[in-house]
Amino acid sequence: MSELALINWLRKRIRLPASVEVGPGDDAAVLAPAPGSRLVVTADAFLEGAHFPAGTPPERIGHKAIAASVSDIAAMGCYPLASFVTLGLDRSRGEAFVRALGESLIAAAEKYRAPIAGGDITSWTAPLAISVTVVGETRGLRPVLRSGARPGDRLFVTGSLGGSLLGRHLDAPPRIEEGLFINRELAAHAMIDISDGLSTDLNHIAEESRVGAIVREVLIPVSAAARQLAEQDRRPPLAHALDDGEDFELLFTRRLPADWPFDVPVTEIGEITAKDVLLEHIDGSREPLPPRGYEHTWRAYNK
Amino acid sequence: MSELALINWLRKRIRLPASVEVGPGDDAAVLAPAPGSRLVVTADAFLEGAHFPAGTPPERIGHKAIAASVSDIAAMGCYPLASFVTLGLDRSRGEAFVRALGESLIAAAEKYRAPIAGGDITSWTAPLAISVTVVGETRGLRPVLRSGARPGDRLFVTGSLGGSLLGRHLDAPPRIEEGLFINRELAAHAMIDISDGLSTDLNHIAEESRVGAIVREVLIPVSAAARQLAEQDRRPPLAHALDDGEDFELLFTRRLPADWPFDVPVTEIGEITAKDVLLEHIDGSREPLPPRGYEHTWRAYNK
Repeated sequence: MSELALINWLRKRIRLPASVEVGPGDDAAVLAPAPGSRLVVTADAFLEGAHFPAGTPPERIGHKAIAASVSDIAAMGCYPLASFVTLGLDRSRGEAFVRALGESLIAAAEKYRAPIAGGDITSWTAPLAISVTVVGETRGLRPVLRSGARPGDRLFVTGSLGGSLLGRHLDAPPRIEEGLFINRELAAHAMIDISDGLSTDLNHIAEESRVGAIVREVLIPVSAAARQLAEQDRRPPLAHALDDGEDFELLFTRRLPADWPFDVPVTEIGEITAKDVLLEHIDGSREPLPPRGYEHTWRAYNK
Repeated sequence: MSELALINWLRKRIRLPASVEVGPGDDAAVLAPAPGSRLVVTADAFLEGAHFPAGTPPERIGHKAIAASVSDIAAMGCYPLASFVTLGLDRSRGEAFVRALGESLIAAAEKYRAPIAGGDITSWTAPLAISVTVVGETRGLRPVLRSGARPGDRLFVTGSLGGSLLGRHLDAPPRIEEGLFINRELAAHAMIDISDGLSTDLNHIAEESRVGAIVREVLIPVSAAARQLAEQDRRPPLAHALDDGEDFELLFTRRLPADWPFDVPVTEIGEITAKDVLLEHIDGSREPLPPRGYEHTWRAYNK
C-alpha cells in the first residue's frame, strides 16, 4: 500500500463536523471556530522508544498520542476543535500495524472531539515518529493559564496519581468536560495537566504564577498503580504519586463547587502560598518539594 | 544541555507579535486571529533521510521545514499567523548542531510571519524528526482551494520549475505576498503550491475540481537548475520541470492582472478544460500528462 493509497484509505474513515470546512486533501485545512473565539494550540511528538516502548500495540499508541495532546487543551479549560497528525512510518511495519494505528488515531480524535483535519504520512527507515497538533477554541471562555494562581487559593487535583508506567500513560482519557467545568463554573485561577509529575507540574504553576504552595502528604490521592509499582521497585507509593507523571489529571487552584458532577473524584491537596513549594508530612513537619518528575518521559524507557 | 535548558534557551530568542497572546510555556498557546477570521492549518513532517539527506547543514534544514509549511498557507492565499514545531533530536548530535537548528527554525518562522508559538523537544536514538504545523488566518478573504478551477480558466505558474534537488528544495522562499495578491486581487479560482511536481499538482487541481487542463510545453518556465540536472542525468530538462517537485512555486487559475508587482515572474502555461490533463508539444500534438512527480519526496533520496 503506497503512502498516497494509505492516506486516501484513512481519509474515507474520518467524519468531520461543520466546524471543519475543509479537511484533509487541500494545501491546508479550513476551520471555522465559534465567532469571537480565540484559539488554543498545542503540539507534541510521540516517539517510539521515547514516549512509548517498542512493541506497544498500535491501538494504544494512537490513543495516547491523541489523548495526551487533547489533555493540554483540557488543561486550558477550552474546547477541542481539530487535530493534525504527521507520521514517520518505519517501512518494515506491516500493513496491519499501519491500519490499526491509523484507525486508533482517527477513533481517539473523534471520541475526544478533535477530528483529524490534516497531516501527512512519510515512510522512512527509523522508529515510529508521530506528531500531533490539537487546535482548540475558547467560545467566549478565558483560557486558564499556569500563571494565574494567587496566595490563598485552594489546590485541587482530579483522579489519583502515580504508577502510570503500568499502563495508564497509554490509556488515560483527557479530562475535557472536567476542564471546561473548572474553567466555566469555578473560574479557576490556574490549571495544568499532570504530565511531568505532581511535584514538577506544581512547581510549573508556582514559577509561572510567582507564588508558593503547600501540599499535604496525607491528602494526596495515591493510585492503586502507584502502590503496585512501589511493591516492585521498593520506592514509596508517595514518591510515585509525586514524581511519575503522565497521569493526565488536572491540577487547579481556587475553589471547589458544592457539587462536582463527574465520576472522577476531585481532591483538595493543599493551598497556594506567597513563596516556596513545600510538602507537609503527616507529623506536621515541612520540607521543600522540588520538581522531581521526569523532565521528559523518555527517561522512563531509556535509563 | 538538557532538553528543558534547550527549550528555555530557544524561548528567549522568540519574538512574538500581539496576535500570539500566550506563547511557549503553558499547556497550549493562545492565538488571537483577526475578528471573523477562519483558520487555515497545515502540518508536515521533515525527516532525515526522507525529506533532507543526512549531512544537510542545520541552517538549511530549519529553513526548509518552516518555508515548505508556510508555502501551504501561501497556496491558500491566506496570512501566516504562528508555527508549532516538534523535534525528535538524535542524542549523538552536538550542542552546536542543535543550537543552529533551533536558531534557523526561529529565524525562518519570524521571517515568514509565522513565529514559533509552541511545540516540544525530545531526545531519542534515531534520525532527526521535525514536524511543523502552521496556523494561518483568512482576515476576511476566502481561502483558495484546489477544487475551484473551471473550464476556460487560464493557468499560471510563478517562477521557474525543475532541478530543486540541486538546492532549491532547501532554500525556496514561500510565496506569501504573491499568494495573497492572487487571492485578493485576482480572485483566483484554484491554487496549489508545487511540492510534488507540476504534473502531479496540476492533476490534483483537475481531480479536485473535476476538470481537465492543457499545458503547452513551449510555455513551461524551465529553470536553470533543471537544465543543469538534465546534463548530469540525461533526462530532458522538461521532465525535470514537470516532475521534480519541491519548487514551492504557485500554480493557479483564472486570470492575470495588467500589472504583476513582484520580482518573481509569472507565466501563463495553458488553460483549464472540461476533461483530461494533456501536454501540448511544440508541434501541436497532444498526449496525456499523468502525475509523474514523486508521491513523497523521500524517494528522491532513497531509491
